[in-house]
Amino acid sequence: MTVRIAIIGAGLMGADHAKIVAEDLPGASLQVICDMDADRARKVADAYSAHDVDSGPDRVAARPDVDAVIIASPDFTHAPLSLSCIRAGKRALCEKPLSQSSNECLQIMKAEEAAGSKFIMLGFMRRFDQSYVEMKRALAHGAIGRPLMMHNFHRNVATPASDFTGAMAITNSAPHEFDVVRHVLDTEYVSISAFQPKRSDALVAPVYMVLETADDQLVNIEINNNAAYGYDVRAELVGEKATIAMNAVNYTRVDRELGQSTSYEADWRGRYAEAYRRQNRAFVRFVETGVFPHIASSSWDGYCAARVAEAGVRALNDGRKIPVEMIAKPEFYA
Amino acid sequence: MTVRIAIIGAGLMGADHAKIVAEDLPGASLQVICDMDADRARKVADAYSAHDVDSGPDRVAARPDVDAVIIASPDFTHAPLSLSCIRAGKRALCEKPLSQSSNECLQIMKAEEAAGSKFIMLGFMRRFDQSYVEMKRALAHGAIGRPLMMHNFHRNVATPASDFTGAMAITNSAPHEFDVVRHVLDTEYVSISAFQPKRSDALVAPVYMVLETADDQLVNIEINNNAAYGYDVRAELVGEKATIAMNAVNYTRVDRELGQSTSYEADWRGRYAEAYRRQNRAFVRFVETGVFPHIASSSWDGYCAARVAEAGVRALNDGRKIPVEMIAKPEFYA
Amino acid sequence: MTVRIAIIGAGLMGADHAKIVAEDLPGASLQVICDMDADRARKVADAYSAHDVDSGPDRVAARPDVDAVIIASPDFTHAPLSLSCIRAGKRALCEKPLSQSSNECLQIMKAEEAAGSKFIMLGFMRRFDQSYVEMKRALAHGAIGRPLMMHNFHRNVATPASDFTGAMAITNSAPHEFDVVRHVLDTEYVSISAFQPKRSDALVAPVYMVLETADDQLVNIEINNNAAYGYDVRAELVGEKATIAMNAVNYTRVDRELGQSTSYEADWRGRYAEAYRRQNRAFVRFVETGVFPHIASSSWDGYCAARVAEAGVRALNDGRKIPVEMIAKPEFYA
Amino acid sequence: MTVRIAIIGAGLMGADHAKIVAEDLPGASLQVICDMDADRARKVADAYSAHDVDSGPDRVAARPDVDAVIIASPDFTHAPLSLSCIRAGKRALCEKPLSQSSNECLQIMKAEEAAGSKFIMLGFMRRFDQSYVEMKRALAHGAIGRPLMMHNFHRNVATPASDFTGAMAITNSAPHEFDVVRHVLDTEYVSISAFQPKRSDALVAPVYMVLETADDQLVNIEINNNAAYGYDVRAELVGEKATIAMNAVNYTRVDRELGQSTSYEADWRGRYAEAYRRQNRAFVRFVETGVFPHIASSSWDGYCAARVAEAGVRALNDGRKIPVEMIAKPEFYA
Repeated sequence: MTVRIAIIGAGLMGADHAKIVAEDLPGASLQVICDMDADRARKVADAYSAHDVDSGPDRVAARPDVDAVIIASPDFTHAPLSLSCIRAGKRALCEKPLSQSSNECLQIMKAEEAAGSKFIMLGFMRRFDQSYVEMKRALAHGAIGRPLMMHNFHRNVATPASDFTGAMAITNSAPHEFDVVRHVLDTEYVSISAFQPKRSDALVAPVYMVLETADDQLVNIEINNNAAYGYDVRAELVGEKATIAMNAVNYTRVDRELGQSTSYEADWRGRYAEAYRRQNRAFVRFVETGVFPHIASSSWDGYCAARVAEAGVRALNDGRKIPVEMIAKPEFYA
Repeated sequence: MTVRIAIIGAGLMGADHAKIVAEDLPGASLQVICDMDADRARKVADAYSAHDVDSGPDRVAARPDVDAVIIASPDFTHAPLSLSCIRAGKRALCEKPLSQSSNECLQIMKAEEAAGSKFIMLGFMRRFDQSYVEMKRALAHGAIGRPLMMHNFHRNVATPASDFTGAMAITNSAPHEFDVVRHVLDTEYVSISAFQPKRSDALVAPVYMVLETADDQLVNIEINNNAAYGYDVRAELVGEKATIAMNAVNYTRVDRELGQSTSYEADWRGRYAEAYRRQNRAFVRFVETGVFPHIASSSWDGYCAARVAEAGVRALNDGRKIPVEMIAKPEFYA
Repeated sequence: MTVRIAIIGAGLMGADHAKIVAEDLPGASLQVICDMDADRARKVADAYSAHDVDSGPDRVAARPDVDAVIIASPDFTHAPLSLSCIRAGKRALCEKPLSQSSNECLQIMKAEEAAGSKFIMLGFMRRFDQSYVEMKRALAHGAIGRPLMMHNFHRNVATPASDFTGAMAITNSAPHEFDVVRHVLDTEYVSISAFQPKRSDALVAPVYMVLETADDQLVNIEINNNAAYGYDVRAELVGEKATIAMNAVNYTRVDRELGQSTSYEADWRGRYAEAYRRQNRAFVRFVETGVFPHIASSSWDGYCAARVAEAGVRALNDGRKIPVEMIAKPEFYA
Repeated sequence: MTVRIAIIGAGLMGADHAKIVAEDLPGASLQVICDMDADRARKVADAYSAHDVDSGPDRVAARPDVDAVIIASPDFTHAPLSLSCIRAGKRALCEKPLSQSSNECLQIMKAEEAAGSKFIMLGFMRRFDQSYVEMKRALAHGAIGRPLMMHNFHRNVATPASDFTGAMAITNSAPHEFDVVRHVLDTEYVSISAFQPKRSDALVAPVYMVLETADDQLVNIEINNNAAYGYDVRAELVGEKATIAMNAVNYTRVDRELGQSTSYEADWRGRYAEAYRRQNRAFVRFVETGVFPHIASSSWDGYCAARVAEAGVRALNDGRKIPVEMIAKPEFYA
């Protein structure tokens, strides 16, 4: 009854998923590593003892020896590959974003509805992160009162590419925040404003967004892709009577040279390693049982993230508040 | 050569100032406690051994046995009493705001210019707080690179009055943030946007402001007057290569009942006790030497705070970004 | 090639191990749950889908369908069951202590030597805990200079049994500290002193120990089994030029009712969940490869822990420093 | 009614006291700076506008223009100068230690008893430090239950002199811990054990002491004079149901270069600046009222600190637990 998994995309994220499947997922096996670059696929397959390699992303979902797919290929391929999984009747864990186009997200939703079942679980792994889990639990228990605001900070050491723009900060980095905040607050956005200071160098400056929700809350998001000092994600949820905030997790601290210090990591992988493990286990259970994990992101959530990002880019370009207009949530995703 | 001080206003702030003068200001003596309510004046005078009491706020600056004045009476009296001090040729430490009307601030500036000297030091004591001093020093030393953003949070346990409004959050509470951020960044605001979530009860909800500066920086300010959990001020200054943030100051922590905790105070007085002491010492030196302390707030700073608050109220009412328009800084205040 | 594991002991620890094998150990399967109480065994077996149950701890190692054993039965059975595993030629992960009698530990060492291979990996899981891993790495990198002292604090909410004694604090709780400190410092103890305050109630008071090492270092250990406030383990390693200390790991913090707080857990399981997982994975690799994990505790380490505990009990009873006398480390364990 | 103060000793401590008297003590004036080195006295007198200088420490207490004395001269002069103050009928704030010889302390006690009044307030300023004040208050309020242990850590960057010894760590540095712990716990020591690791260089290694109290508590003290990384004092008071620990006080923290850090100071002066101020104000009130401050250290406390230090040196030399034998507390100091 082992779930045989194919991973599409043998880059950084694909290799990480291969490692998780190989080392952390009882009940799953690493069946295929697929990449258009066959050498790259082979390298990852060898590193984690996958059974086979494949260089045809489009056809891998249809392989009879594959029970489920992890899509970790370039962003623009997520939507077509998701559709190929739905056609093949295979569940897929798709790295975010589902698509940067909300229209393309709608197509995937339609395909799922037509198939009569959810197939796509979206890789918004933060929902599985212990910090957000504790925040959501605090709300459920009434520990902080009704939520009023959520402050969110996303900081990277440096942009992945030299031609990174403010719009890309909104479409590539912010979706993690858009999704997990919706999830924690259990609401939708109704407007977004975006601001941006200027840097003295050629790097992209931070983008700061203020969103209003359907429940009259405020959500503030800093996306600072060139924060320089470390990979650092923060969040504080402000309730009517108390607040709950994400705590930095460090296993040791050091006293040295007139200072006490803890460390930041250089990228997201250590910070979210456990969230990825939990997410991927939830995915295996989804494949085994057909029951979509209630905590996970669906195609609908992918649509919502794309929609608010589209409005965010306009808000940044126009320098004013933009409404976030969405279709009514289909019964199918209720 | 002792500086003989009169305090106008024998309420909470006036009593605090009386205590500082009596117990913490070598070189100064508590000459007069003045309040229209003579009993109230007497009570504070007795508590801190003031030499005399007076019930005429308008005439106290002119008393020959008074060298300097601390104005701690209700907000609307600050401007006329400041003018009476200038007329009497006495330096005054005036509690904030100088006035909620920027026009009234301009009148005081004109009076000082006409008198040929600065007389009014404004009680924006945060400039003397060690946290902000260290932030300003970090900038001066290049420790964090060019500043890009400053995040500010001001939280009170509860509003002082039941009819507190969002506009009052901007005009009464936010000026401390407006002033100290201008001081730390050494710049002026050019626009302000304001947002407000809704509470489920009748209390005033937080106000969240985003300001842009003349140096293309962002300044974010949360004023949360009913935060419930404690008096809590936070600030983080984000530079191009590093950040510096205010740290909560606690002398002990407790492990008890499955938790480790530190304490918040119920109001601002413990948190800023040292800042008030430093400010008042700077004021005594100002009186002794006639040299305006370079770190302190002047009437010009009072004008700037009033001007941005006026724009902030409009931004909150109109739901859109409002430019902050100010007169050019007079040579006299350069 | 799946490693088929039998767990002896279906109590708290046994059930935890069953969960880890079932949910976190790719490459291993839960073959047998063994307990003299067959109902208890059945309950755990059902909870984690073990293939079989057994009520004869002595014979389970010899079962042909068992590749490896986890010994989680009562302490006094650890040594005889370890010997039965060695006789059956099966690797065993034995919960600590190997034995409270150093003589019994020597017998196991002899059995391993006779068998020509190490069979027993001791469940001192702290060696796999990230905090200690980082401390050991800091030493290896010279980050704090030569180590001089290590301060260790072990605090439980309450003693497991009402007849817990100071001697039991040394023989039952302290061995974790004895072992992990030896491991981090890579040295042996040469003396131990023990002190004990008095409580006002009938509960066992903390025991405080000072140990000297063969490398002229000091190791201080507080065992506070009735600390009341939470499960809390701390350690600080003091070097000649810097220190490194264990940091409390918390995913959120809460601001409420004039305090900011983080949480303690009520027992060790959350704190060391990841260490147990890592340890058990190392054990599976040990079974697969026959190569003893260099980081893990062997029978020799079990002997050392027992020997220092024996000296510690004498130090507590006699109220004076007691030398820790050990046999020379056998070549076999070098 | 100003208290005219003479300071004996124009070194580091004397200059600090001069600064406090000049800038922080309403009700006191800096009358005389006295040092056998007249130039040194003059330099400090000029810096803080003292009225006069004197080069005869023995006779300064007798000056008619001096109301009170602060003794900040070398340690061996503390006792004879204290006696000269008692003879002259002047209150003195004497820097610690009163004497390293408990016999000499007894002589001072006798002189006070003969004079019928307390004259000497000892400069154990930590009793005025907010952290210890909060610990003592927590005990008084029953917040942590009956105290069982107190862990204390005293770390300096480097020893003041190259010929510093372990015995000096006990007689020079530890008395601050000896005194403040007695004060917080309100008890006396009955035994002391001392341990010392070895450094790889010529610097003095830390000394670690375990003391037992008359109330069956344990007090552990690390004196680490060459801790290298910063000036760092820590204390944790462990009660039967909770603990309270000293918190490091920092006004800012910095995120930079993959780390978050706060600062240590290089010496004690910033850390205890407020404690010195509070202590010296208490001294001025003592001079004004003749009522010995209930929180302050008396000659009896100086005797107790000397006595435990004498036993501590023996414990270190002999490598065994030494009883701390003291005279019964005289009625006069009750």
